Amino acid sequence: MTMTTEGFSFELQAQVGNARAGILHTPRGDILTPVFMPVGTVGSVKSLAPTELVADPIDAKIILGNTYHLYLRPGLDVIEDHGGLHEFAQWKRPILTDSGGFQVFSLAKNNKIDEEGVTFRSHIDGSKHRLTPEVSMHIQGVLGSDIAMVFDQCPPAQSAPRDHDVAMRRTTAWAKRCAEVERPPGQALFGIIQGGLDVGRRLAHLEELQAIGFDGYAIGGLSVGEPPPEMYRVLRGVAHKLPTTNPRYLMGVGTPEDLYEGVLAGVDMFDCVMPTRNARGGTIFTSEGKLQIRNAKFRRDTSPLDPNCPCYTCSTFSRSYLRHLLKAKELLFSRLATIHNLSYYAQHMRGMRQAILEGREPLPRP
Amino acid sequence: MTMTTEGFSFELQAQVGNARAGILHTPRGDILTPVFMPVGTVGSVKSLAPTELVADPIDAKIILGNTYHLYLRPGLDVIEDHGGLHEFAQWKRPILTDSGGFQVFSLAKNNKIDEEGVTFRSHIDGSKHRLTPEVSMHIQGVLGSDIAMVFDQCPPAQSAPRDHDVAMRRTTAWAKRCAEVERPPGQALFGIIQGGLDVGRRLAHLEELQAIGFDGYAIGGLSVGEPPPEMYRVLRGVAHKLPTTNPRYLMGVGTPEDLYEGVLAGVDMFDCVMPTRNARGGTIFTSEGKLQIRNAKFRRDTSPLDPNCPCYTCSTFSRSYLRHLLKAKELLFSRLATIHNLSYYAQHMRGMRQAILEGREPLPRP
Repeated sequence: MTMTTEGFSFELQAQVGNARAGILHTPRGDILTPVFMPVGTVGSVKSLAPTELVADPIDAKIILGNTYHLYLRPGLDVIEDHGGLHEFAQWKRPILTDSGGFQVFSLAKNNKIDEEGVTFRSHIDGSKHRLTPEVSMHIQGVLGSDIAMVFDQCPPAQSAPRDHDVAMRRTTAWAKRCAEVERPPGQALFGIIQGGLDVGRRLAHLEELQAIGFDGYAIGGLSVGEPPPEMYRVLRGVAHKLPTTNPRYLMGVGTPEDLYEGVLAGVDMFDCVMPTRNARGGTIFTSEGKLQIRNAKFRRDTSPLDPNCPCYTCSTFSRSYLRHLLKAKELLFSRLATIHNLSYYAQHMRGMRQAILEGREPLPRP
Repeated sequence: MTMTTEGFSFELQAQVGNARAGILHTPRGDILTPVFMPVGTVGSVKSLAPTELVADPIDAKIILGNTYHLYLRPGLDVIEDHGGLHEFAQWKRPILTDSGGFQVFSLAKNNKIDEEGVTFRSHIDGSKHRLTPEVSMHIQGVLGSDIAMVFDQCPPAQSAPRDHDVAMRRTTAWAKRCAEVERPPGQALFGIIQGGLDVGRRLAHLEELQAIGFDGYAIGGLSVGEPPPEMYRVLRGVAHKLPTTNPRYLMGVGTPEDLYEGVLAGVDMFDCVMPTRNARGGTIFTSEGKLQIRNAKFRRDTSPLDPNCPCYTCSTFSRSYLRHLLKAKELLFSRLATIHNLSYYAQHMRGMRQAILEGREPLPRP
């Protein structure tokens, strides 16, 4: 089965081994892949304005929004007043929304799952709510995202095989129900493959989802506590088996090394709070490795965070100044560090994409 | 006596009653007066990057830095490594530094004053330090500010007349010592008039400072708890008596109404944390009055903070979105609110300046 969404298509440009370079065409603009998508949990990529996200070298072609968070706060009526999340947050480029499933299981309180959906209490005020495949699709419709995700069940990594089977069966049933909901024009829908760390289970689940047919296929339930080599093994067994004609999305991943391994395995899209959250805590990704800018050795270091980075932060401020801002709890620090970390991630992805387009091997490692 | 600092002069352009419009020429650029100076306490105007401060409509011609804070953290050696505060914070326009006196009395612990200076403990780590007029001038020299302030004693508003006399005598002696310290080329020095709420005392102190001679004259020790009408009375009695050939600076003031009253009384320069601190707490100054953006009535308000403001925040985002950012504790809120409040202050000052230049009365009220 294939799903057809108007204005949405994936163009494969080049391949090196399993690594792919492509263009995801969407009604709100093209997304060059492989791509890292910054996370704008509650309607803002923490500490950044839209102007900074579209500026070089970040130039984010797509960002994420979280259904669970936005549904609870500000609430759907508020987003509806604005005609959707794009207008609310003044972000004109594509947005991908998750289904709320992951947060319902990881963040909400007293979640109770049944065949129809999940009942839970808000982590903000304890109020009672219920998410079902239909409700999740309705919320994502009001948000008006360009890519919606099916409502899935993501079991903990250390779950028993039996529990993974239950989650897979349920995710398939829910995915089918999501696919049957009418979506706003131009909104694509991705299926999510579960199955834990067992490649056979993953491929079986993929088959079930392909039988339904989606605009893209995501790998869920990885990077949830398992050792990285375990994740890489699953990726190598699964990613290249996903349909070549559709975008492949690895959810919630990861480190620069994870992105390298993911691209090598054949993944096109990634998202993670790592570059933004780490930035706010003072962990900086650079072309010369990670650094903790809080460290005393940077107190009088007048060089930039990363001598090879052209971002605003690196072309303007010293490590010494940035360390001072962090120590003094100045709000500006989070922004400057986030600009740099997202610039690093964007350049890392762009470097791999360029190598694939040019047929260069090996791909540049972080 | 007059003080002459190379490249530093005040040009009076127009006067309406006691209200003045002028240009403060400095080696790092002209400052159009009356002017409000945003406060960059520890080397950043909280939540803003330099690019935002120089952009319209804020277009800040000068900002403040706090000697006490910067001396304690990051410390003078760090600033010296960068060749001064301008390079450290990447702020290319003029900077005014206070002397540290106010913070030593209001923020530091266990301060002990003697004729030579003040011994105190850091509010950050309890370490013991000593500020004297000479030390303050040395620090301000390393910071490399364009306008330095004399080290003064600012007694509480409710002090006895005797205590005000002691503070005035001490401030005069310290001001004289400050004036005798060699400053970096082009650094101007302002004297500070104390004397509490008694106009006679204020004018007597002004005479003592004029006998020393400074590049500019500041009124200190106001807006320290007294009712606004009391402050306005003192301003009306004192400001227009300050030398007409020099800039007049009202320290640590104030509300939009205070600025109006100050300009009316003949003041040229103001600084205050009010627009920036209030912004972070959600108090917004608009052409239609103050508003608390946290208020539930703004939950679904899709209009801008201030329909008459051309700033980035008002031309881009809705009240509803801004309220959401504040409620969700998103870092972006502080920045967007600060941009607006400083834009409001800048436009308020510019409106009064324009009216004075055109000889229009009454001056536009907030």
